Amino acid sequence: MSSISTSPHSHLLLPQNQNHFLSESGTHASFTPSPRPFRPISIKCTSTPAQVQTHDPLPAQTRAQERVFNFAAGPATLPETVLRRAQSELHVWRGSGMSVMEMSHRGKEFKSIIEKAESDLRTLLQIPSEYSVLFLQGGATTQFAAVPLNLCSPADAVDYIITGSWSDKAFKEAQKFSKPTIIWSGKPEKYTKVPSFEALQQNPDAKYLHICANETIHGVEYKNYPTPKNPNAVLVADMSSNFCSKPVDVSKFGVIYAGAQKNVGPSGVTIVIIRNDLIGHAQESTPIMLDYKIHAENNSLYNTPPCYGIYMCGLVFEDLLEQGGLGEVEKKNVKKAEVLYNTIDGSNGFYKCPVEKSVRSLMNVPFTLEKPELEGEFIKEAAKENMVQLKGHRSVGGMRASIYNAMPLAGVQKLVAFMKDFQARHA
Amino acid sequence: MSSISTSPHSHLLLPQNQNHFLSESGTHASFTPSPRPFRPISIKCTSTPAQVQTHDPLPAQTRAQERVFNFAAGPATLPETVLRRAQSELHVWRGSGMSVMEMSHRGKEFKSIIEKAESDLRTLLQIPSEYSVLFLQGGATTQFAAVPLNLCSPADAVDYIITGSWSDKAFKEAQKFSKPTIIWSGKPEKYTKVPSFEALQQNPDAKYLHICANETIHGVEYKNYPTPKNPNAVLVADMSSNFCSKPVDVSKFGVIYAGAQKNVGPSGVTIVIIRNDLIGHAQESTPIMLDYKIHAENNSLYNTPPCYGIYMCGLVFEDLLEQGGLGEVEKKNVKKAEVLYNTIDGSNGFYKCPVEKSVRSLMNVPFTLEKPELEGEFIKEAAKENMVQLKGHRSVGGMRASIYNAMPLAGVQKLVAFMKDFQARHA
Repeated sequence: MSSISTSPHSHLLLPQNQNHFLSESGTHASFTPSPRPFRPISIKCTSTPAQVQTHDPLPAQTRAQERVFNFAAGPATLPETVLRRAQSELHVWRGSGMSVMEMSHRGKEFKSIIEKAESDLRTLLQIPSEYSVLFLQGGATTQFAAVPLNLCSPADAVDYIITGSWSDKAFKEAQKFSKPTIIWSGKPEKYTKVPSFEALQQNPDAKYLHICANETIHGVEYKNYPTPKNPNAVLVADMSSNFCSKPVDVSKFGVIYAGAQKNVGPSGVTIVIIRNDLIGHAQESTPIMLDYKIHAENNSLYNTPPCYGIYMCGLVFEDLLEQGGLGEVEKKNVKKAEVLYNTIDGSNGFYKCPVEKSVRSLMNVPFTLEKPELEGEFIKEAAKENMVQLKGHRSVGGMRASIYNAMPLAGVQKLVAFMKDFQARHA
Repeated sequence: MSSISTSPHSHLLLPQNQNHFLSESGTHASFTPSPRPFRPISIKCTSTPAQVQTHDPLPAQTRAQERVFNFAAGPATLPETVLRRAQSELHVWRGSGMSVMEMSHRGKEFKSIIEKAESDLRTLLQIPSEYSVLFLQGGATTQFAAVPLNLCSPADAVDYIITGSWSDKAFKEAQKFSKPTIIWSGKPEKYTKVPSFEALQQNPDAKYLHICANETIHGVEYKNYPTPKNPNAVLVADMSSNFCSKPVDVSKFGVIYAGAQKNVGPSGVTIVIIRNDLIGHAQESTPIMLDYKIHAENNSLYNTPPCYGIYMCGLVFEDLLEQGGLGEVEKKNVKKAEVLYNTIDGSNGFYKCPVEKSVRSLMNVPFTLEKPELEGEFIKEAAKENMVQLKGHRSVGGMRASIYNAMPLAGVQKLVAFMKDFQARHA
């Protein structure tokens, strides 16, 4: 094993095949698939056994290369073109002589990667110049602490609207670093609604108003946004599960934060978009890694960032721009959601979505079966047809289909065809 | 672009070539390289231009596949076999129908990945059962806060030994959450030493004694470890840049933490090894993501972990075990360091390493040139010979060659051949 790793020229072993690989995997624009039937089919393509000396005793000869439709809530399906691109340049990135995973975060190669990622994200969301974009670690859960630590003092009032599990978690963490108030909670109605903004009893002194723009578990999504009552306060949004799924007027927010692992990349990257005047006021006891100032001043390179994840986000941003930007992406997401919600609503109660129609999420579609005893069978049969991760979150049960940007319409069409067939057989 | 991404069966495009690729890149055990001359040579292998429709206007036809010897301090070079393995299964992981980047962190596939990674790490370091292994985010810098937040109260005394920039940063962060004392500092001697343990003036009440086991910037490495004077105190070590480079008696430590991006993986993963009785005592104001208890109770799955990075670490752990474990790895590292330090010491002062011989790092080798005006030329010529990232840290200047586990002996041999040639031409 060490024999090959001692040579930086071992590529000499496979220039031909590398080219073969690239030319097949990299070509996609000219490929037109034949129309796919909705009736579930089971095609298997198993690699021909090669005389491969594998790295461990894995059965290489049985590794099917078939892709499934993955309805997981996050980490979630990524665009296949992005994965192919990443695969083709994993070993050596664009003539740099190394993998992106090996690059110094202070070298010119990675600098070009992170700067392009930021620039493309700014284009996608039309982020105003007075906002900073930070690529951080620790997930939205770390932001639950960072937001109050940076935006208020321990004695300050802040307002939280609770539309599901995630906004509730954000509120609980804020109790350590501020005086938060729940000004509305959807809990009595099992998190199926967004409140009327006019009726909200906002605290006139609150330093910010916090919302979760899309509740991943409960499938509740804001279609527009409340304005803080205090003219000096800002709106803060956890957009983890609908980030970059549609255009957003960033100027309405003080802070937007999002874990990458739903719409824009792998887990391990957290993106924060923050208005510059809100930076530099962190509480004294703020861990340095939670202080927005240190990251803004260092262009997210204060310490070693999650480089490969940022690179992957950059590839996704390129892909979204190629699709025509977030307006086009939103159209596709609306279409997919319509197909799925219409099937649920048209099932005569066999399937039910509990969420109020006006705030149903375009990203996460929870639904229940009239006969809950069929749930196990539903999930098992769907998995056989290569549709996986349809089980609802353990805290709510039922089903949940997450249909993020990278879920193709064909995936949703296959799912609803299956749902109709399943209903016909079990109604 | 959307045409191919709509089909989960697009693998049908390349089963043959995928096999070609696997059989070449996956085969390594039987390959014996011809002896490589030490005299720098410049071989270029540029891929034959293929008719590839690329994802952006990159010059695909000029993408050389040549690998460089990368002496970066981290992120750093990774084992080529690991990169090839990761590349071969990036698009679809072992029959799962999806990339590791797309997997739910609560699914059985990722569970098998993280459990094997932990198990292999436990084998490598012979971690006692009364210690937990946590896979976290945020780098060692986050641990600079997490250590005092979890191990002491704000009024508690804690001791820090400062052997370079990193232990100094750890001390400064600890001031927010404890009463730390610098009990020894190498600063007056420009961080070239480790103190005599007997002479240390430890605080008898200190809750822990903190060290940085290897200073990445200054190249100072502990060869053995001090014992806390207070029998109830524990030793805490930042092992970011020598983690898994040699066997370590974990039972001597209360906490070991390390960023992955030197020896064991890409950036974005931080590994914490902690004795179980130290878990569960976090200060009230600890952000939940910095509380060891929440991660230990949830097997590092409280929130979404950096899944792909953990997978990469797992591949590296497998590779280290295949090499025969850390004892064998240490032998290779000792050999590489000898070759380089001997060249420096045998240069009649043309090259100099300022670090005291007994504590010179096996991982990071800083050296200066007698004629500093030649530094730019040295770096330029080395880069031409495909040896990159040799510039010393901006805070200390000179050169630095980081020769982590994955740097092959051939890379060090090529470097010293170049150094001798450079000296002959400029002495």
